[in-house]
Amino acid sequence: MQHPNSDDVVGDFKAAMRRLAATVAIVTSQSDGRRHGMTATAVTSLTTTPPSLLVCINRSASIHEPIIRSRQFCVNLLACEHGHLVPIFSGKMTGEERFCSGDWAIGEFEIPYLANAQANVFCSVSETLAHGSHSVFIGNVEKVVLFGEPSPLLYQEGALYKSIALS
Amino acid sequence: MQHPNSDDVVGDFKAAMRRLAATVAIVTSQSDGRRHGMTATAVTSLTTTPPSLLVCINRSASIHEPIIRSRQFCVNLLACEHGHLVPIFSGKMTGEERFCSGDWAIGEFEIPYLANAQANVFCSVSETLAHGSHSVFIGNVEKVVLFGEPSPLLYQEGALYKSIALS
Repeated sequence: MQHPNSDDVVGDFKAAMRRLAATVAIVTSQSDGRRHGMTATAVTSLTTTPPSLLVCINRSASIHEPIIRSRQFCVNLLACEHGHLVPIFSGKMTGEERFCSGDWAIGEFEIPYLANAQANVFCSVSETLAHGSHSVFIGNVEKVVLFGEPSPLLYQEGALYKSIALS
Repeated sequence: MQHPNSDDVVGDFKAAMRRLAATVAIVTSQSDGRRHGMTATAVTSLTTTPPSLLVCINRSASIHEPIIRSRQFCVNLLACEHGHLVPIFSGKMTGEERFCSGDWAIGEFEIPYLANAQANVFCSVSETLAHGSHSVFIGNVEKVVLFGEPSPLLYQEGALYKSIALS
């Protein structure tokens, strides 16, 4: 059944985006020797020529300035077993405190990465586009590390999901 | 087990992106009275201030020019029942031929929309950014229609998946 049309575009848009299931990532960066990380679902592949992806980050997020300053970040694709990291990397703890849990190591560009993530995609910032409250960071992919079997942790309707094959 | 490091960044990046499960959408547009549509997984919410999303589209795709010309498009979020539309909207058929199957109607801006999609998000192009082979279209959300219960159709590892709640 089609839902009644509403004049509340923002509310309707939020409701639609709750249906856009997305793989949960933790985006990490470092600046002045300090580690930063936050959960993100607004991550998408852009092109392979050159290999690049994009992430959308609120300009008020604590990781925004470190990415601007260092021009480098890593997208860590979470696996189903990483659900416990989601509230830590999206909650009240900030900066180094967030790295209290998880198999974190230091990699390319001195950026922290989750060693047992499905994948770590190390990027250098190619372009930055501001739009409303957010910045779109386009990252050129410098190095990729894969780990284990595919097992994406999904975010949908404000909760965590996993994927199962159809047919 | 961590996979051996490879010097093939493009191949490794493709392998990583196969693990980035994403909701399948059909992006539609119209130009000169002709309907255009293609499957897309590179769709992400950008911000609610103002309500906007982005889609990444290869400049060689047949829908690219219609979006450039009309500056309007619709993101139709597919439900699990729409798996049969994926090969049609990503295969050899072009233009109007692709609309041979599915509950298509004409909506805002004369754009075709899938009436039983999880959601139709009608957008006007706010900004376009070229990067390598692709364009990033940032769309201001003009109208949203929701239909039925959330049931996102997912694309992962080259196949179709559905989501199930964890715990």
